[in-house]
Parts: sequence; C-alpha cells; structure tokens
Amino acid sequence: MKRPGEVTLVEVGPRDGLQNEAGTLTLIDKLQLIDDLGAAGLTVIEAGSFVNPRWVPQMADSEAVFQAINRKPGVRYSALTPNIKGLERAISAGADEVAVFAAASESFSHKNINCSIDESLARFAPVMEQAAERGLPVRGYVSCVLGCPYEGEVSTDAVAAVTDKLLQMGCYEVSLGDTIGTGTAGSMKALLDRLLADFTPDQLAVHCHDTYGQALANILVALEQGIATIDSSVAGLGGCPYAKGASGNVASEDVVYMLEGMGIRTGIDLSALVAAGNRISAALGRDTLSRVARAMSA
Amino acid sequence: MKRPGEVTLVEVGPRDGLQNEAGTLTLIDKLQLIDDLGAAGLTVIEAGSFVNPRWVPQMADSEAVFQAINRKPGVRYSALTPNIKGLERAISAGADEVAVFAAASESFSHKNINCSIDESLARFAPVMEQAAERGLPVRGYVSCVLGCPYEGEVSTDAVAAVTDKLLQMGCYEVSLGDTIGTGTAGSMKALLDRLLADFTPDQLAVHCHDTYGQALANILVALEQGIATIDSSVAGLGGCPYAKGASGNVASEDVVYMLEGMGIRTGIDLSALVAAGNRISAALGRDTLSRVARAMSA
Repeated sequence: MKRPGEVTLVEVGPRDGLQNEAGTLTLIDKLQLIDDLGAAGLTVIEAGSFVNPRWVPQMADSEAVFQAINRKPGVRYSALTPNIKGLERAISAGADEVAVFAAASESFSHKNINCSIDESLARFAPVMEQAAERGLPVRGYVSCVLGCPYEGEVSTDAVAAVTDKLLQMGCYEVSLGDTIGTGTAGSMKALLDRLLADFTPDQLAVHCHDTYGQALANILVALEQGIATIDSSVAGLGGCPYAKGASGNVASEDVVYMLEGMGIRTGIDLSALVAAGNRISAALGRDTLSRVARAMSA
Repeated sequence: MKRPGEVTLVEVGPRDGLQNEAGTLTLIDKLQLIDDLGAAGLTVIEAGSFVNPRWVPQMADSEAVFQAINRKPGVRYSALTPNIKGLERAISAGADEVAVFAAASESFSHKNINCSIDESLARFAPVMEQAAERGLPVRGYVSCVLGCPYEGEVSTDAVAAVTDKLLQMGCYEVSLGDTIGTGTAGSMKALLDRLLADFTPDQLAVHCHDTYGQALANILVALEQGIATIDSSVAGLGGCPYAKGASGNVASEDVVYMLEGMGIRTGIDLSALVAAGNRISAALGRDTLSRVARAMSA
C-alpha cells in the first residue's frame, strides 16, 4: 500500500484560479480569500503572479496582495515568477516561495510563452540561481502532461525529460499539470509508472483539471502511487465548464471530501473551506463549481 | 489485477433519469432517446417503470414506450416493477427484463416505499416467482448503500444482508446504489471488501450518484475490485446539482470516457452517446450534466 496517510493541498485558487476568471475583484476580496483559506487550514497558498500585467491584468495587484496578506504562521504564500524581474518583485513583496512553469509539449510552449521548452528552461536559470542565493524554495510546473490542445497526445518520456531538468535546476518539487483535463485513470497511471522509475513520489505533485470530470479519479490514481501533494482550487476557481482549453481546476472542496472519506489527513476544515469558496464565488457573481459545496449548501 | 477487460453499462437515463427530471417529454422524445442509446452501443437500457402513475407521472406512458420501441437485436430493454401488477403490465408490454428495489436503510425504506425492508422483500416474492415462471431475468436494486439521508451512515452488514436476500430470491445481479452520492473511494472500498467476502464480482453492479462529484472515483474503486457492471445515465439525466436527496446520476459519457482511457472495452461509440445526451438535453430544455459532453461540444 503506497497510499499516503497525509496529503498537502497546494491551493492555487488565488493565482491560477482568479487569473482565469472573468469577474473582477477588489484587493479586499483577494485578501479575504487568502485569509479564509489560511483559516480553513491550507498551508500552501499560491497568492499571486509577478508577470507582465499587460499579459495577465488579473494579477496586476500581486505586489499589493503580498504586502497586505495577514500572514498566518506555518502558511507558505507562493508566487509565480517567469523571469528574474518577476523574482525580484516577488522577493521585495515578501513571497515565501516562487514557482516557474514549463510545458511538456513544444507547441504549447511556443503558443503559451512564445519560446521552446529549452529556451524557457534557460530563462529560468537565473531565477533558480538568484532564488537559491536568497534561500527561496522554487516549485516547477509542467503543463500538458496528459495531453496538449495542439499536439494531442504527449509522450511520457517528454514529461520525464522536462521534469528531470526542472529538478536538476533546483526545483524541490514538480507539479504535473493536466492542463486540458483530457487525462484519465489510464493515462495518469501510465505517466506515473514512467516518472516513478526515475523520481520519488515526494518530488512530484499532480495538478488535475476537471474539464472532462476525470480529476478526482486521476487524483485517486496518483494517491495509490504514493503522491502526497495535490494542487486544487477552491470553488473550482479558474474553471469555466463551457470554455475550451486551460480551464477547469479541480475544486479543493471535492478533493478534501474524497481524502476525508479515505481517512487521509489534510489538516483542512471542510466547512470553513466551503464557506471560503462560497464567499469568493459570490464576490465573482457566479455559482461555485464545487459539487461538494453545492451539495453541502443545498 | 482484478480490473475487468470489458464492462457492461446499464443505461438508466430513460427511467431513473427522466423520472427525476422536471421537464416534460413527448412519447416521440423518449423513443428517440431509447433508439439513440441502442444505436450508440448500449446493450442494457432501463426504458420505463410500471408503478402507479399517481406516484410517478413521468412514467405513465411506459406501456406505450415499450410497445413502440424500435427494438435492436442484442439490446435488453428493462422495466422497474414494484409489485405483481407492475410485473404483469411489464410482461404484456414486452419488457425483456425487470427490476425490483429495496433499501439498505430502514428509514429510507419507510419514507420511500412506506414499508420495512423485510416487507418490501415479501412484496417482491410473488414478482420473483412469476418472473421465474416466465423466464424473465430480475435485477435487484439496493439504495442507500453508502449513506442514508435520514440515518446517515449505513453499515456494510446491512447492505450485505439485503443483497443476500435479493440474490437468494433469484435476482441475477444486485445494483448497489449510492442514492445520495455521499460515498467516497474510502467507503466504496470498505463496502466492496465486505460484500466480496460473500459474493462474486459478477453478482454486483454499482450505481453511483455524482452529487458530491465522487462518482467516477468510486467507480474506479469498484473496477479495481473486479466489478464489471456500471449503472449510468446519459447526460446525467435525473441529476439536479442543486436539489438535495436522490439526485445526480453519473453521466454515461463521463464513465465511457474514463473506461476508454483505461483501455476497458464497452462497445459504446462515445460520439454517438454524446449526441444522444445532447439531443435529450435539448428536448428537456436544459444543459447536459456530462462534463465530457460539455468539453467535446465546446
């Protein structure tokens, strides 16, 4: 039995989630969300992104967010930093941890960040160096691990190659993103069988999208392989079930409900998490995408 | 590896599904749905119910439905028959197979069918005898196997006891219903561990509701235990995510997508199934609840 007794949820709602929401929020709304998430027991919260605000206007206030967070001891507040300029902003704003992102598919890398996979990794090199000097942990994201919107199938070897490079460069963990949500229990098992030949479960996390409703089943497969870190987004923030492409973050509430039912510890108070998700959904003027939140609130 | 190489889907949309939908349909709509499902490759279709139309007005036209079905060779068209009168109507309408239903929770049995579990089984005795005489296969349903809206937790022994009685009475298979959808990978595993001590996987089917988003993960657990018959409902018919109680049939499209990804044969054409679900959803004037159908239609 490889299943972990305890799982860490990486809450990506305030960054990956809100970045993909149409609704606009005030700084107060964002701070309230981050506060609510910490109070619910989340220990890793992706709170913002230091990218060019021209590309991602939803994250233009990340400096202000980080500076105003009501920090809870024991919680790591992380930020996405695509380059050295972003890293410097993240450090001066007080991020506890940063993240870089690469793709497992060349086409997606070109379309998404306008460079090859190798070029993207080269850009991260100074970020990794500077972060290491400052003692800042760096997390790596790999997108399209179970399918690419342009190429279709992505080979497990391609995912292994970019995962290996990110770990070699100093990332403490690589989060495997099923960006378009096309993965299944079958493809997730095949991917992890390949990756766990080279890496240990504690070097990996899964980041599942629920676009095809497969996220919890895929997470279950990862748990059975010993993976103990799961990315999720409260209220399914970032997920529009009608939009094509990079949408449909699995809802944190639904993951926590499953883990509780399996007797796996998370340290999270599900009722408080549901309340946090319902509050931000109301602020966005949309329904929660968490089925657990809907059922519990009915 | 107990996982089956092939799975039979029992399509419950036209009965269990439509019975719980608010929209009204014409006889033509229903026949079109049944026709579409057969054409998509479903081999077991629950097409109607011979209950008192005062209690279930949505099924008042089941006689007309059965008589008008454009029967496809190799497809079994089944009907729910709560008593001997229902059985006689089902036989004269030409049902290939019938089903009886009991609960694993006394409170649910009383509230739902106004008698104890034992009384409900006693009522089925003449149905079983008459069906046996006519050579008609009988399927048993057990509701509330992973939770009861009135009692909360339901013991695995209680589920085993009613399952045993239904099999003893002559049911060829018992479908385990997570009526309120509160089950998880943990509780499904515990239930099947208990049941498979007494029964074989081919005597059991699972009937998961997606009210808490757990259905596919729970089905995955059942597959790993060797269960090879899965109930599902095209377009998630019968599922209103905002209603409390017996709502939220897992969408057939989502199940087939997962099974295909796992390399498990179903004989079903997913595109045709999605088209069937989209057509009946349009007739009902509502969106499909299948995430796969939404993603594939986007």
